[in-house]
Amino acid sequence: MAASVDLNADLGESFGAWKLGDDEAMLDLVTSANVACGFHAGDPALLLRTCRAAADRGVRVGAQVSYRDLAGFGRRFIDVTPEDLTADVIYQIGALQGIAHAAGTTVTYVKPHGALYNTIVSHRDQAAAVAAAVAAVDTGLPVLGLSDSVFFEEAEQRGLRTVAEAFADRAYQPDGTLVSRREPGAVLHDPAEIAERVARMVTAGQVTALDGSAIEVTVDSVCVHGDSPGAVQIATAVRERLTEVGITLAAFS
Amino acid sequence: MAASVDLNADLGESFGAWKLGDDEAMLDLVTSANVACGFHAGDPALLLRTCRAAADRGVRVGAQVSYRDLAGFGRRFIDVTPEDLTADVIYQIGALQGIAHAAGTTVTYVKPHGALYNTIVSHRDQAAAVAAAVAAVDTGLPVLGLSDSVFFEEAEQRGLRTVAEAFADRAYQPDGTLVSRREPGAVLHDPAEIAERVARMVTAGQVTALDGSAIEVTVDSVCVHGDSPGAVQIATAVRERLTEVGITLAAFS
Amino acid sequence: MAASVDLNADLGESFGAWKLGDDEAMLDLVTSANVACGFHAGDPALLLRTCRAAADRGVRVGAQVSYRDLAGFGRRFIDVTPEDLTADVIYQIGALQGIAHAAGTTVTYVKPHGALYNTIVSHRDQAAAVAAAVAAVDTGLPVLGLSDSVFFEEAEQRGLRTVAEAFADRAYQPDGTLVSRREPGAVLHDPAEIAERVARMVTAGQVTALDGSAIEVTVDSVCVHGDSPGAVQIATAVRERLTEVGITLAAFS
Amino acid sequence: MAASVDLNADLGESFGAWKLGDDEAMLDLVTSANVACGFHAGDPALLLRTCRAAADRGVRVGAQVSYRDLAGFGRRFIDVTPEDLTADVIYQIGALQGIAHAAGTTVTYVKPHGALYNTIVSHRDQAAAVAAAVAAVDTGLPVLGLSDSVFFEEAEQRGLRTVAEAFADRAYQPDGTLVSRREPGAVLHDPAEIAERVARMVTAGQVTALDGSAIEVTVDSVCVHGDSPGAVQIATAVRERLTEVGITLAAFS
Repeated sequence: MAASVDLNADLGESFGAWKLGDDEAMLDLVTSANVACGFHAGDPALLLRTCRAAADRGVRVGAQVSYRDLAGFGRRFIDVTPEDLTADVIYQIGALQGIAHAAGTTVTYVKPHGALYNTIVSHRDQAAAVAAAVAAVDTGLPVLGLSDSVFFEEAEQRGLRTVAEAFADRAYQPDGTLVSRREPGAVLHDPAEIAERVARMVTAGQVTALDGSAIEVTVDSVCVHGDSPGAVQIATAVRERLTEVGITLAAFS
Repeated sequence: MAASVDLNADLGESFGAWKLGDDEAMLDLVTSANVACGFHAGDPALLLRTCRAAADRGVRVGAQVSYRDLAGFGRRFIDVTPEDLTADVIYQIGALQGIAHAAGTTVTYVKPHGALYNTIVSHRDQAAAVAAAVAAVDTGLPVLGLSDSVFFEEAEQRGLRTVAEAFADRAYQPDGTLVSRREPGAVLHDPAEIAERVARMVTAGQVTALDGSAIEVTVDSVCVHGDSPGAVQIATAVRERLTEVGITLAAFS
Repeated sequence: MAASVDLNADLGESFGAWKLGDDEAMLDLVTSANVACGFHAGDPALLLRTCRAAADRGVRVGAQVSYRDLAGFGRRFIDVTPEDLTADVIYQIGALQGIAHAAGTTVTYVKPHGALYNTIVSHRDQAAAVAAAVAAVDTGLPVLGLSDSVFFEEAEQRGLRTVAEAFADRAYQPDGTLVSRREPGAVLHDPAEIAERVARMVTAGQVTALDGSAIEVTVDSVCVHGDSPGAVQIATAVRERLTEVGITLAAFS
Repeated sequence: MAASVDLNADLGESFGAWKLGDDEAMLDLVTSANVACGFHAGDPALLLRTCRAAADRGVRVGAQVSYRDLAGFGRRFIDVTPEDLTADVIYQIGALQGIAHAAGTTVTYVKPHGALYNTIVSHRDQAAAVAAAVAAVDTGLPVLGLSDSVFFEEAEQRGLRTVAEAFADRAYQPDGTLVSRREPGAVLHDPAEIAERVARMVTAGQVTALDGSAIEVTVDSVCVHGDSPGAVQIATAVRERLTEVGITLAAFS
C-alpha cells in the first residue's frame, strides 16, 4: 500500500486568445503538471507563465508531447513516420526545457498527449519513436503512461523509467484498458464517487470495472483532467479523500 | 587585421516536402551554421539532420530565431508584444537546443532572422525582448547581428557578447547600413567581386559603399547566403580568396 | 433619424477544442453576423455550424477577414505585401462563401478584423489591397468599417458600398476616433449605459466623447462584441433600449 | 477507343518562399490543373497566379483538396472525423472558387490529394465525407479518382459524376491497384516508356501490370506528376506520343 501518490493534470492548454481550463486553480491541487509543448496547445508566453506558476508552487513540470495538430487538439491519430515523430518529440521537449529553465524550473518527465498517448499503447513503431526521442534528450527523464503498453516496453528497453498512471474519472474495462470516450459511461462526473475510486486504487491497488468486477491497477500517479467541467472540484475532492485515508500527495520520486 | 574570420550561413530552411538551399554543400564551406528553429522554416526532422551534418563537420550551430510566420518565411514585420516575443524566442532556442543535443552538438549562439533581424536594429522594445530571451536561456550565448544596433545595446546591457557580422553579397550605404533589397544593386552576384570585397572587409576593415566611398566595417563574422542562386559558388570563392590572403576560416571564439 | 438599424457581432471565433463567446445566444440578438474565415479563428466545422445557425434565424452573414495569425488572433499588425493581402482576403471570402452556401445562406458583406481593421483606417496600401480583394470577388459586396477611413475611400473608388459602423461599448475621442484599448476607460461595461449611448447614436447621430463633448457619428450598423464578458447582456440591453425608443432592428439593406 | 483524353497534373504546390515544380511549363502541357487549396500546399497569392496562368492557357482548374497538414504535405493519414472532413473540404473548394473567380476562371472539378486520395479508395466514412462536401458545394462538380473505389460509390450515390484517372508513371498490380511507393519499381522514370504505356492505356484500355499480365484500365484522364524530377519531359513525351497515335488532348467534357 502506497504511503504517497502523485496527482497529475494536463495544463498549459490554452492558445493565444483561447483559454482552456483553470491552470492557476489546478496548480494549487496537483503535484505534477503535464505542460503542453505547442504542438496541440500552448503558445510560448502561456507556457512561460504556466511554468512560472508551477515553479512558484513547487509543482513538478513534465513535457506533454503531441502530434502536430492545433486544429485537432492532438486528438486525431496521424500516420507520421517514426523519423518525423522522434524529431517532433525531441523538438517539443527541448522547447519546454528552454521555457522551464527561463521560468526557474526544469522538465522532469514526459507524458504523451491525446491520440499519441492512445496510439502508442499498441503501435510499435510510434511507441519506439517516442521512446527514442526521450532517450535522445535525456535517459534520466521518466515517462508517464499506461502500464502493459508497448510504449513502456520500448521505454524500458532504452533504460527509461516508466511511471504508471491511473485515471481518476475514467471507466475501465475488465481487462484493465479504458472504456472508449465514445461509449456511454466512459467518463465519471461525480466528485465524491471519483474521489472514493481513487482512494481505493491507491490504497488497495484495485478499481471496479464497468462490469462490476474488481481489477488490479498499478498506480504511481493519478491523472485528473484539467479542462473538464468540474475539474477543480474533482481534483479537490480527490485530494481531500486521499488525505483522509492517510495518503500523502507528493510528486513521484 | 584579423588572422581568422568566421563564415556563417542560414541553413535548415527547408520545410517538409519543400527544399531550400543545399545545406550539405554549404556545411562544407562555412564555420557557423545559423539553423532555423521552426518558426519561419525548418521541420524538426530536417533540423535534426542539419544539426547532425554540422556536428559531423565540426561546424558551430546557432539558433536562427524568427517571428512565427511560415507563410511569410519570417520576412514580414509582426507587431508582436515584447512578452510574446521573448517567450517565442526562448521556445525556439530551447527547441533547437534539444535537437542539437540529440545530434551530438550544442547551440552556441543566436542570430535573429529576416524581418526580426532588421526590426531590432532600431525597434527598442523588440530588441530588448530578444535580448531578454537569450539572457533568460543562457547569458553565455553570444548574439550575431549588426554593430551599432539597439539590439546590440540591449544585449550588452544584459551581459551578452555581441558578434558583429558583415554581409558578403550586400551593398552598403555610406552610413554603414545595408541598401534595401527593394533598391537596384542591393545584392551582388559575381563570386569574384564578392570574394574580393570580403577579403578587403576582413583584412582592412573597409568596404566600398554604393556611392564609391570607403567605409569602416566591424567584422567578427561574414554572412554568406545559403539559399540564393549561386550560394555555393559564392561561398567557395569567398573561402578561397580569404585563404589566399592568409586568413584562416574559424568559428568565432 | 434612423427608423431601423443593424446590429452586428463577431462570431465563429472558436477554433477546434477552444471555445470563444456564446454564438447561439448572440445569434438570437444580432441582425448581422461577422463570421470568422479561418485566418484568425474559426475551424471549418465550426464555421459551418455557425452559418447554419445564422441561416436558421435569418441573420445575415458577413466575412470577417483577417491577417493570417491564429497565434495572435489577428490582433497584431503584419507588414504583408499588398499582393499577398489581396490574395489572402479573396481566399477567405471564397472559403466562407463555400461554407455559407453549404449552410443554405450567402456571404452578403465583408468586415475586416482586429489589427487589419485598425490598420486600414490609415494604411493606404493595405486598405487598397483589401478593397481590391472584395471587388475582385464581387463588386456587389458592401464593406463594414469606419467612416472617414482610407479603407472607405479605396472601397468607394472601386464601386463598393460602404457601411459605417459605431461601437456600442467603446469610448470615442473628440475627433471621432476610438480611444485605444490600452487607455483607461476605452471599453465600457455597464449594459444600461451602453444601451443608452447606442440609442442616442442611432436616434440623434451623436455620442459623448471622453472629454464630455458631443460628437457626430454616422451609424449604419452598431457593433456589439461577441466575446467580452457580459456580451450577451450588453446586446440584450442594446436591443431592448432601441426597441423602446422606436428603432427597428434589421440588417442593413 | 478514345478519340481524346484529358491530361491532369498537381499544380500550385509551392508555399511562400518554397517552390515546388515548374507550374508554368506544366500548364503548357496539361489540359486540367489540380490546383492545391492551401491545406497541404499553396499560399493564396500563388494560387491566384496559378489560376491566372491556367486561365490564360485555357487549362481547366480543379480543386485539389487535402487533409490539413502543411508539415506533412498532405501525405499522412489523419483520423479526422467525417464532420470535420466534410467542412474542411467545403472550405477548400470555396477558397479556390473565390481565387479562381478573381482570376477569371472557375473550379470545374475536385480531386483529393495524397493520403486523402489513397484513404478514400477504401475508407467508407471519409469517402462519404468528401463526397458529401462536393455535393454540398455543387452537385455539378465531377470528382477525379480511382475507379472501383468506395469514393466513387459514395460520389455516385450523391449524383456526382466520376472521372476515372490512370497514372502515367506508376506501376500497377495485377488487380488494378497501384504498387505502393514503398515498393521497388513503383514509379517509372523513362519518358519514352511512360509515353508508350499511356498511349496503350488510352487507345487499348490496357496496361501491363508488374507481373507482366495485361490488365484493363478505365481512363477518362491521365495523371502526370508535376513535381517529380523530369516531370516536364515526361509530360512532353506523353503529349507527343498521344498526338502521334491520333489522340486529341482535351479536358474531359
